[in-house]
Amino acid sequence: MPSHVSISEVGPRDGLQSVKATMPTAHKCAWITALHAAGLREIEVGSFVPARLLPQMADVAEVIRHALTLPGLTVMALVPNLRGAEAAMAAGVHRIALPVSASEAHSLANVRKTREQMVDEVRRIVARRDALAPGVGIEAGVSTAFGCTLQGTVAEDDVLRLAADLARAGADEIGLSDTTGMANPAQVRRLFQRVRAEIGERTGAAHMHNTRGLGLANCLAAYDVGVRTFDSSQGGLGGCPYAPGASGNVVTEDLVYMFESMGVSTGIDLETLMAARAALQAGLPGEPLYGMTPDAGLGRDFVYADGRTPRDGRLGAAGTAA
Amino acid sequence: MPSHVSISEVGPRDGLQSVKATMPTAHKCAWITALHAAGLREIEVGSFVPARLLPQMADVAEVIRHALTLPGLTVMALVPNLRGAEAAMAAGVHRIALPVSASEAHSLANVRKTREQMVDEVRRIVARRDALAPGVGIEAGVSTAFGCTLQGTVAEDDVLRLAADLARAGADEIGLSDTTGMANPAQVRRLFQRVRAEIGERTGAAHMHNTRGLGLANCLAAYDVGVRTFDSSQGGLGGCPYAPGASGNVVTEDLVYMFESMGVSTGIDLETLMAARAALQAGLPGEPLYGMTPDAGLGRDFVYADGRTPRDGRLGAAGTAA
Repeated sequence: MPSHVSISEVGPRDGLQSVKATMPTAHKCAWITALHAAGLREIEVGSFVPARLLPQMADVAEVIRHALTLPGLTVMALVPNLRGAEAAMAAGVHRIALPVSASEAHSLANVRKTREQMVDEVRRIVARRDALAPGVGIEAGVSTAFGCTLQGTVAEDDVLRLAADLARAGADEIGLSDTTGMANPAQVRRLFQRVRAEIGERTGAAHMHNTRGLGLANCLAAYDVGVRTFDSSQGGLGGCPYAPGASGNVVTEDLVYMFESMGVSTGIDLETLMAARAALQAGLPGEPLYGMTPDAGLGRDFVYADGRTPRDGRLGAAGTAA
Repeated sequence: MPSHVSISEVGPRDGLQSVKATMPTAHKCAWITALHAAGLREIEVGSFVPARLLPQMADVAEVIRHALTLPGLTVMALVPNLRGAEAAMAAGVHRIALPVSASEAHSLANVRKTREQMVDEVRRIVARRDALAPGVGIEAGVSTAFGCTLQGTVAEDDVLRLAADLARAGADEIGLSDTTGMANPAQVRRLFQRVRAEIGERTGAAHMHNTRGLGLANCLAAYDVGVRTFDSSQGGLGGCPYAPGASGNVVTEDLVYMFESMGVSTGIDLETLMAARAALQAGLPGEPLYGMTPDAGLGRDFVYADGRTPRDGRLGAAGTAA
């Protein structure tokens, strides 16, 4: 098994669009810089949606301009449709993320389009990309792939059919999202295996939520069946936290800790990553952040997958317990 | 693969001895009754240690007397030595848990005995058990099996040797404990597999901590290699929480949710289990409880492994999100 995974940080998009406050542009840029300094090489920096719907994302073009200055960073933005994709390409993103719901009810509620209409939209976006910016990657994320709070159970065959349709429409990668935190490890293994059997190497990222505490277990399950890209957000920011204490997204810090401690390299420096929380907090004062590793520290004798040891003795010793 | 696991609730022992406050006896009994009502069939109800060291456990014999009235419940107590084991057997427990550290430094610090002396102690306890109460089970838990904050790395060979020694000394089961929250899923799989190769069916429970958020992932890893008994505590109470927000033990509620949602039966009713938190909180006012499932609810269309659906529509619907 390869011993490397890619972590795609979605906090600046998924996180910031889920909180009420709007992080000032300068703070967004400083946070993204701090995340990049920690070794993150793919960041979803914002979304192209009308500012009247998501005022938190009104400055997305400016944020992208900054992110493009960071060496080696794949700058990603979420778009809901062709118009958004055109704006994202004009702003210079490297990759476009496009959520397509496997639940018809969720699709209609979220973007007022059927799944079929969304597949058509992807086809149009791919054609425009081919004409305007052939280097830009297009990743379709199958949302509500593991269940939907509106529709209830989502048939696995619906997910497979949608993944195949999206591949035929030209999406470069098709990931699976546990939009509402209903996934379990057995289901994650089964569904990713079936999707891979259907679309092969176009199988993309696992986007898991921590709604019922299963975020890391579901990521482990996805890793076990060959998934090598994982979405997560610093401090677990975002991801529909509808209950106190119920963080949404998988926490990047804990996810990186899990893989590195298993001997699976992420390319990320955990100490620098944990220090980046200060940049997030500076831009969103008072917003609760989640994550156990930042509280506990790396623990005695923690060793990165590549053999490095923590630079900071304090962090290494923080795990002292009776 | 069998689709059933046993959850051993350790909150009344591991949890209550880790908090400063002492839960009044009547509240302990009410909490244990509530846990039993939820379907838990093994509960570690207390420990036999001198009351001057752990005043929280001074009433253990009285608590056991109550627990023994609950039908079908395996009443378990932790003992550090022969004297404690004798007292536990006199009190009528069904099973004895005895921690034996794989780290010599931890063993000396914790019980002022070397590992070898602890194995001798187990041998004496087994002899006394055979003479006095042959029906009582003896489970040795290898603590610091995945690392030690005092000693640092714990050699896997040390764990294997200790497990083999404990089996030879007559312990009925030998479990592995991540005492200081240093385990990772790769290590959990490897070590449980090696232990099973060494001592076969005497391989016992996985006792995982959630120090760095990996508790459920580590339980999943242990399940994957055949472990079928898991220790956890309601609300994550206990387990050396040395940092704010860093809960110690795996949360029973989330663990049960994970297995049931995977189709692995626990015999536990999650709604009754979550209701039991009130009994815990009544006895320990103000003590923070952890767990994501209690906040999020069971979610729409949750189905137990045995096909049951939640009785309470409110709980089932709590997972509604945008």
